[in-house]
Amino acid sequence: MSMNGVLTPVVTPFDAALKPDPQRLVAQCRWMLSQDVGLALFGTNSEATSLSVAERKMLLETVVEAGLPADRMMPGTGLCNLPETIELTRHAVELGVGGVLMLPPFYYKGVSDQGLFDHFAQVIEGVGDDRLRIYLYHIPPMAQVGISPDLVGRLREAFPGVIAGMKDSSGDWDNTATMIERFAPGGFEVFAGSEDFLLRTMRAGGAGCISATANVNPAAIAALARDWQGEGADAAQEKLSELRAIVAGFPMIPALKATVARHSGDADWARVRPPLVALTVEQKDELGRRLDAVGFDMPGLSQHAGA
Amino acid sequence: MSMNGVLTPVVTPFDAALKPDPQRLVAQCRWMLSQDVGLALFGTNSEATSLSVAERKMLLETVVEAGLPADRMMPGTGLCNLPETIELTRHAVELGVGGVLMLPPFYYKGVSDQGLFDHFAQVIEGVGDDRLRIYLYHIPPMAQVGISPDLVGRLREAFPGVIAGMKDSSGDWDNTATMIERFAPGGFEVFAGSEDFLLRTMRAGGAGCISATANVNPAAIAALARDWQGEGADAAQEKLSELRAIVAGFPMIPALKATVARHSGDADWARVRPPLVALTVEQKDELGRRLDAVGFDMPGLSQHAGA
Repeated sequence: MSMNGVLTPVVTPFDAALKPDPQRLVAQCRWMLSQDVGLALFGTNSEATSLSVAERKMLLETVVEAGLPADRMMPGTGLCNLPETIELTRHAVELGVGGVLMLPPFYYKGVSDQGLFDHFAQVIEGVGDDRLRIYLYHIPPMAQVGISPDLVGRLREAFPGVIAGMKDSSGDWDNTATMIERFAPGGFEVFAGSEDFLLRTMRAGGAGCISATANVNPAAIAALARDWQGEGADAAQEKLSELRAIVAGFPMIPALKATVARHSGDADWARVRPPLVALTVEQKDELGRRLDAVGFDMPGLSQHAGA
Repeated sequence: MSMNGVLTPVVTPFDAALKPDPQRLVAQCRWMLSQDVGLALFGTNSEATSLSVAERKMLLETVVEAGLPADRMMPGTGLCNLPETIELTRHAVELGVGGVLMLPPFYYKGVSDQGLFDHFAQVIEGVGDDRLRIYLYHIPPMAQVGISPDLVGRLREAFPGVIAGMKDSSGDWDNTATMIERFAPGGFEVFAGSEDFLLRTMRAGGAGCISATANVNPAAIAALARDWQGEGADAAQEKLSELRAIVAGFPMIPALKATVARHSGDADWARVRPPLVALTVEQKDELGRRLDAVGFDMPGLSQHAGA
């Protein structure tokens, strides 16, 4: 039942008409799984909020119909409104996903824990399916609306079998540590929002990480999640963070897609939907140079990307 | 063609199952129009982002089919993703609305003017209808993502017939004044986001205001928009702001709905969708007392509310 380990918000490919391209997505997912990385489809770095409800459903159906294991999928299904959040969540559950990663409603700012509790309670009752496993998505830099420890506690108490864990993308280690300390002993799975916190998360009793850069550096991140008790763990963590810092020196989503494009030889991968903007040629070159300088590679990608 | 004057983000009624109630919405719209206030349906204070695409379409169709004048409607159609923004916008244009009020995509923070320009350009091309009139919705307190003067300038240049105006809910008078100064001489209609700025907006050459509190205080706000050059204008402005301050002393949307509920005698109006929370009984009583103390009333509401 656990989704422990490393997952990635799989980047979403767009064709020349800016429509999502399901076959390229399947290829990227296959490569992720071959590197022991699970599929947090429709995360922030998947440009999920730039997709319609219909597009998300089509893409998830395509990935499942391609024969990829649904129990390794944790699609994002949280929108600002209840009916569509329920619709997307039910659709994912019916396809057999291991869990869903759920943003809080993120338009209104300064909302209360009571209002957020009511929202999640309505979603759970609306979906009405015992197979539902929700991972709460705490990402204040984007959503602004956060998930407090008290809210987690209330939700766990009211829906113990459903509220399965969380992703903490606050970038605030103290918050992650608090969540692990308070809730992991009860079986709550806390994922760090970046591999920068992977080793600390594992040592504290967390579940792993859900990392954007696992789109391009999956094997090394997954290896540390498995071997965190090994001798080389601190050195491995340092290497992961060095690589992440290179990518994070550029706008993250365009940089990830440019890197997939470069190493797959498929330039179409570099496209993003507005309001994001692709890297300039100069930025792409600079990113490529910096990655080359540390011997970066994406072994095995081309087999899948060419599919 | 102009939508000058006062519009309100009409509050959206929900039934006991938290579904939107189209007939109550029609009643509130009728009362608004009877008070010379236009219908900025699906604004922030309409809980628009708490509605699904299907719900917005159903509600707009109901209001139009009820015989209310579509040219007095400026529904909100801006979502985070292109396909649904295009779908909602096209639907509204085909129903004959006077304009649409469009949020920028509001999930990703720190996006560039280029990315926002690309987004609006894609929407305009995607809708592909000469009748489209877009009012840009600048509301940094909620959306965080704003509409800069430079972006307005670029959009006006590229789509002069389409980019018709804006609502400035920044609460920053200097910004509103800049927008009016730069763009009103070219026919761009700048609406203040609150009647607190109505008189200044009219004197500077703006178009009016789109005000949440016009849901409860429509006649007096509309009167100042008409009579802003009259002798009593400053005193009238002061009265408007006093009343607004009373309502704004409570969470705005629940306070508006509680006030409609109280004066229509229809307690169901007080319901909100999560993540918002209705006022407590104590808050409702306190708000009612403060409004009574200044002689507040909603004349004519009950005729419509009972419909």
